[in-house]
Amino acid sequence: MGMVGGGRDAFIGAVHRMAATMDGEAEMVSGAFSSTAEKSKVSGEDLYLNPERVYDSYQEMAEKEAQLPEGERIDFVSVVTPNILHAPVSRVFLEAGFHVVCDKPMSISLEEALELREVVRKSGKVFMLTHNYTGYPMVKEARHLVISGQIGEVLKVVAEYPSDWLLSPIELKEQKQAAWRTDPRQSGVSNCMADIGTHAENLTRYITGLKIDKMCADFGYFIGDRELEDDGNLLVHFQGGAKGIMYASQISAGEANNCNIRVYGAKAGLEWHQEHPNELMIKYPDQSKQIVRRGYDKASEAANRATRLPPGHPEAFIEGFANIYLEAFRAIRDYIEGKFTSNDDYDYPNVDDGVLGMAFIETSVKSANSGEKWTDFPQV
Amino acid sequence: MGMVGGGRDAFIGAVHRMAATMDGEAEMVSGAFSSTAEKSKVSGEDLYLNPERVYDSYQEMAEKEAQLPEGERIDFVSVVTPNILHAPVSRVFLEAGFHVVCDKPMSISLEEALELREVVRKSGKVFMLTHNYTGYPMVKEARHLVISGQIGEVLKVVAEYPSDWLLSPIELKEQKQAAWRTDPRQSGVSNCMADIGTHAENLTRYITGLKIDKMCADFGYFIGDRELEDDGNLLVHFQGGAKGIMYASQISAGEANNCNIRVYGAKAGLEWHQEHPNELMIKYPDQSKQIVRRGYDKASEAANRATRLPPGHPEAFIEGFANIYLEAFRAIRDYIEGKFTSNDDYDYPNVDDGVLGMAFIETSVKSANSGEKWTDFPQV
Amino acid sequence: MGMVGGGRDAFIGAVHRMAATMDGEAEMVSGAFSSTAEKSKVSGEDLYLNPERVYDSYQEMAEKEAQLPEGERIDFVSVVTPNILHAPVSRVFLEAGFHVVCDKPMSISLEEALELREVVRKSGKVFMLTHNYTGYPMVKEARHLVISGQIGEVLKVVAEYPSDWLLSPIELKEQKQAAWRTDPRQSGVSNCMADIGTHAENLTRYITGLKIDKMCADFGYFIGDRELEDDGNLLVHFQGGAKGIMYASQISAGEANNCNIRVYGAKAGLEWHQEHPNELMIKYPDQSKQIVRRGYDKASEAANRATRLPPGHPEAFIEGFANIYLEAFRAIRDYIEGKFTSNDDYDYPNVDDGVLGMAFIETSVKSANSGEKWTDFPQV
Amino acid sequence: MGMVGGGRDAFIGAVHRMAATMDGEAEMVSGAFSSTAEKSKVSGEDLYLNPERVYDSYQEMAEKEAQLPEGERIDFVSVVTPNILHAPVSRVFLEAGFHVVCDKPMSISLEEALELREVVRKSGKVFMLTHNYTGYPMVKEARHLVISGQIGEVLKVVAEYPSDWLLSPIELKEQKQAAWRTDPRQSGVSNCMADIGTHAENLTRYITGLKIDKMCADFGYFIGDRELEDDGNLLVHFQGGAKGIMYASQISAGEANNCNIRVYGAKAGLEWHQEHPNELMIKYPDQSKQIVRRGYDKASEAANRATRLPPGHPEAFIEGFANIYLEAFRAIRDYIEGKFTSNDDYDYPNVDDGVLGMAFIETSVKSANSGEKWTDFPQV
Repeated sequence: MGMVGGGRDAFIGAVHRMAATMDGEAEMVSGAFSSTAEKSKVSGEDLYLNPERVYDSYQEMAEKEAQLPEGERIDFVSVVTPNILHAPVSRVFLEAGFHVVCDKPMSISLEEALELREVVRKSGKVFMLTHNYTGYPMVKEARHLVISGQIGEVLKVVAEYPSDWLLSPIELKEQKQAAWRTDPRQSGVSNCMADIGTHAENLTRYITGLKIDKMCADFGYFIGDRELEDDGNLLVHFQGGAKGIMYASQISAGEANNCNIRVYGAKAGLEWHQEHPNELMIKYPDQSKQIVRRGYDKASEAANRATRLPPGHPEAFIEGFANIYLEAFRAIRDYIEGKFTSNDDYDYPNVDDGVLGMAFIETSVKSANSGEKWTDFPQV
Repeated sequence: MGMVGGGRDAFIGAVHRMAATMDGEAEMVSGAFSSTAEKSKVSGEDLYLNPERVYDSYQEMAEKEAQLPEGERIDFVSVVTPNILHAPVSRVFLEAGFHVVCDKPMSISLEEALELREVVRKSGKVFMLTHNYTGYPMVKEARHLVISGQIGEVLKVVAEYPSDWLLSPIELKEQKQAAWRTDPRQSGVSNCMADIGTHAENLTRYITGLKIDKMCADFGYFIGDRELEDDGNLLVHFQGGAKGIMYASQISAGEANNCNIRVYGAKAGLEWHQEHPNELMIKYPDQSKQIVRRGYDKASEAANRATRLPPGHPEAFIEGFANIYLEAFRAIRDYIEGKFTSNDDYDYPNVDDGVLGMAFIETSVKSANSGEKWTDFPQV
Repeated sequence: MGMVGGGRDAFIGAVHRMAATMDGEAEMVSGAFSSTAEKSKVSGEDLYLNPERVYDSYQEMAEKEAQLPEGERIDFVSVVTPNILHAPVSRVFLEAGFHVVCDKPMSISLEEALELREVVRKSGKVFMLTHNYTGYPMVKEARHLVISGQIGEVLKVVAEYPSDWLLSPIELKEQKQAAWRTDPRQSGVSNCMADIGTHAENLTRYITGLKIDKMCADFGYFIGDRELEDDGNLLVHFQGGAKGIMYASQISAGEANNCNIRVYGAKAGLEWHQEHPNELMIKYPDQSKQIVRRGYDKASEAANRATRLPPGHPEAFIEGFANIYLEAFRAIRDYIEGKFTSNDDYDYPNVDDGVLGMAFIETSVKSANSGEKWTDFPQV
Repeated sequence: MGMVGGGRDAFIGAVHRMAATMDGEAEMVSGAFSSTAEKSKVSGEDLYLNPERVYDSYQEMAEKEAQLPEGERIDFVSVVTPNILHAPVSRVFLEAGFHVVCDKPMSISLEEALELREVVRKSGKVFMLTHNYTGYPMVKEARHLVISGQIGEVLKVVAEYPSDWLLSPIELKEQKQAAWRTDPRQSGVSNCMADIGTHAENLTRYITGLKIDKMCADFGYFIGDRELEDDGNLLVHFQGGAKGIMYASQISAGEANNCNIRVYGAKAGLEWHQEHPNELMIKYPDQSKQIVRRGYDKASEAANRATRLPPGHPEAFIEGFANIYLEAFRAIRDYIEGKFTSNDDYDYPNVDDGVLGMAFIETSVKSANSGEKWTDFPQV
């Protein structure tokens, strides 16, 4: 595998490397880790890479890797740059013949997302978007319980992602990640919704299959003179009549990455928290609450396939991340064996999730700026 | 004490009796327990009351009790009827010279609430509205932490009250409480917001002191052909710039009475759940989370005054309810000793809370029916 | 009802009064509240009692109350003195013809307990010992699950009661309760086991029905120069082959009244914590964990009979305490109606529990002082 | 790296591979994975290994690898066989010049452990024993809090490891791991204490530094006709006066791997659960409880060095395991650079922990079989 972005001090690049390699199915061999050649080189040394395969730019990397003999060149690249480069880098590698794993959000605009969708379709390559929370076994169990009808028709969803990492204006103090996220020139039209709100939307859709019909958004700009929102609250109507509340916040003191979801059906409710990911609560109106534990025999096949350890030995963020990588590797192996037809056949987030994610972000921005109560979700 | 409503099978009447008497400061001696004389009589027997002081109607009760000699007649009445009678009964007893404890919501319209405010003011009597959640010691501790500035300026509030008691159309099956709550003729303009949404508003205001500036409401009518909402979701702007999400639901499967609140300040966040009321969580961005336990020496004086048992021996709903009664008793004793000036001097919910509560309910109904995004909260 | 002990500043006396009266089934009318007449008088005034029925001594109280006409005199007395007086006071009132509610431990020696058993039997009166934890609805549910075979044969029990209230030598600083508990002249042969260890034993026996066959005790005397233990750890063999660990501690920093029990059967395990008493966990080897909530329809009849509020509205310590009082009141009413035969017919702790409790305390002391591994539990 | 044991279907071998390689610091290149050459070969294929470096036996592997040129041969071997082979395999590789990572328990007898200690000392090589729970960041934080005096002198420790994996006699049904664990010929003198009890001892000693002075053990043989214990309960006296309870169980229904520890000091208590490893609770007698979260700035340097992700993104079992591997890699790098002096200089469990672990296991067996209350812990 190769990587674009993710040099020293970056957070998500290291996660991608651990997740991709922990099961012994991939090996880091190449990268263009930074916007400067010097920094890229240093990061390559940190990773014990062959210096010849550490490149000055992603363009050079795509070109040179493509010239290497099959079996030697990378199979896929992981794109872990700031948002603004997600789509351009993905495009270059797809067009150079590589499979692509891309961090979310997929682009900085819905238009760019739609263009990338075309590129992916034309390429016929494996394309995975790392909406990693769908990799948690108990999220897969929740999806199974909804899809198989065990909680009845979904009436209401509450999906939250409170955090506090931007409660201080750390973007003014050389915190590089905060700087690019709060800068519309690197981040796009949204900060908070693009950073974490989109996880709430993706998680909701993965578990329930519900698509948003319209929404009403209220954005906050609490700290300093931020151009982009650091808090967003949404009322949501789903197609088919279910309702929802979604919110994401970067200014909620004392919250770390408290992504959680509650799904209320006509027969039972579900509750899951990513900070305690090994447990899924099923809540009945007329029975005891149940706590499903990762690893139990009676969990669904999808949940148990995504588990490495017996119950009681906790798994967590990196393993969940690794699960979607494993599914991409399955697709890549199928590709190599000539059996790959479509990204839709695999249990990982793909370019369509990216398009819907960008539609979600843009619609929430549009609604937040609108005086009307409801803003329709676009048909994409 | 006397009671209007609260006969056999009623839920909240029994709670009022336990709460009012558990500390040995009041005794049940009189009542008009039901809309029929016969049922009232039977309920009086259940309570070992002197049959002469069990009345056929609340009007008769007010009249006859007022004729009894001082020292023998009741000091106050607790009004625990369906909503439609809250204000009329309160009025009759206030005008007959009695102190009044009234269950929430205070009336079935804002207009009626404003009228009752006038009656209370003219009467000069003690008037308490049983927004009982403010009686919990850890709610008082939360208020103390906010008011004393320990969590910084409040930026965001999330207040929830999910429940599932109306997930089935039990109003069609002779469940008397469900029947009157879902019937606009007995309940007023709102079911869910009047039943439990108003607790979320009151709790938020008690802890933070924040008043609502405007709101955006989305109501659900999920079950059967209900005329009144069984689910309500609100985006809220508070005066001064804080934002909030409030919701109440009677159709959230597996939720019992999961009233909870999170308050996020510039320095720290607070979290409290009524289902686990003995603990208050303080969440800091840069320190360990803290769990304040009811009864600890270092809790605030307000919290510790409202506690009966040492830490680790849990207190709960009835004790919280009893705490606001104790404060009303303090006011009544002051009244008897000629020291009572105003209901504002005591730590119990009063007629102003009732007015704001009705304004909240009516405004949420208005907003839910409006195509405009924001509906202003009235100046009352 | 009358009370011996429980004057100003005492903890458990106030609990008894709240528990006995909260359901409107009893009224405080008489007492001998302190070892000095003056203090007793003051406590009586606090409680609005008729001064003529506030006595200088318990002997006087028993004598004078017995001379009052039936219907006017007390029905029963609650004995809430230091341990040394439990049996003597109970005896005097039983012999004077009153029913007795006695705080635990029942006496200061097994010998005295056996004598009191004879007195109770001869008297034919109602005698309840306030092992209050058995009053919690979820404890009754646990008992139901074990007795009805739903968790299979019990293999192992872990019962704990850590607390920290004697982590400092507060008995040297005028803390009256600490002073008498740590003083063998007022407390008997044991401090920690008599204070709280006995709750662990009683709770275990109530839930499982298991009787101890032999035990191995290890006592600690951690703080200052205490004559009596402030920590005790026990290995236990039950009759029939189950094994257990029991411990009680008054020096476990940060623990309040963390009484809890885990029962492991051949089919499932149970877990209950008195600090969160509204929930009982059932743990299966091959299914989801279940959390039974107080108030749910499908809980056992015994649990639901002991519940006042719907699920989600928490009940706690005082309500649990009140539940065993209610059962004693049922026995007293039966007595009055000539239907009472034996204390064994009711679901409250009785004199036999008191005898076994004292046997437990004395055996643990004997074992702690023994060089032999196992000390037999006496046949009593 | 190479591996002995850990073929298909083995649990702990896969964990070692993920833990050793997830940080990009090691690569699997060689192994003797099974007792049969055929199975070993198949396992090597699963791992994409060069077939030439998949060996029929560990002896062959040690010999052949030692003949490979430096830079090509393995640096270290991970020994993940059944207990009976831990010491012999370790010996062979140490004597062949390799560093060794060995699963616990280190041997099947104290005598064998003492011999291996001599081999390690003579070899001058890096030797790590995978008592992996010491790799959890919050365990390191707990150790820091104790060692730095923040909880005061330790008075009492309660260390538990309940599980239920042997509640049925699965050793009779071809469950290979259960079969060898319950067979004294493969497992040594103990099953439950050697499997998991030793974790409780190691965790206690790592956090508190306390060494056992004497113990009193009670073993259970609950299921079928097991020759070795499936449950063990211990009273413990530590050197210096602290006391403890330790227990391990394989027959506690509904418990998965609920390893947990509570440490009570004169100033504060600590509590940690491996099933929720990202949180450490500090409990004060006179302050709020605190929950330290992995990743927080103010956690100790030792804890934060062992963390990969920001707070809120959970880490778990594999990451904790990887942390002790990382520390071994640091030692191996130091060795390569000529800076390694002693295993004692590193924060991983070493041969001395192995000796004390075996002493613990043997002493518990001796005590369980003894009629005397206390059995001394040997001076080793």
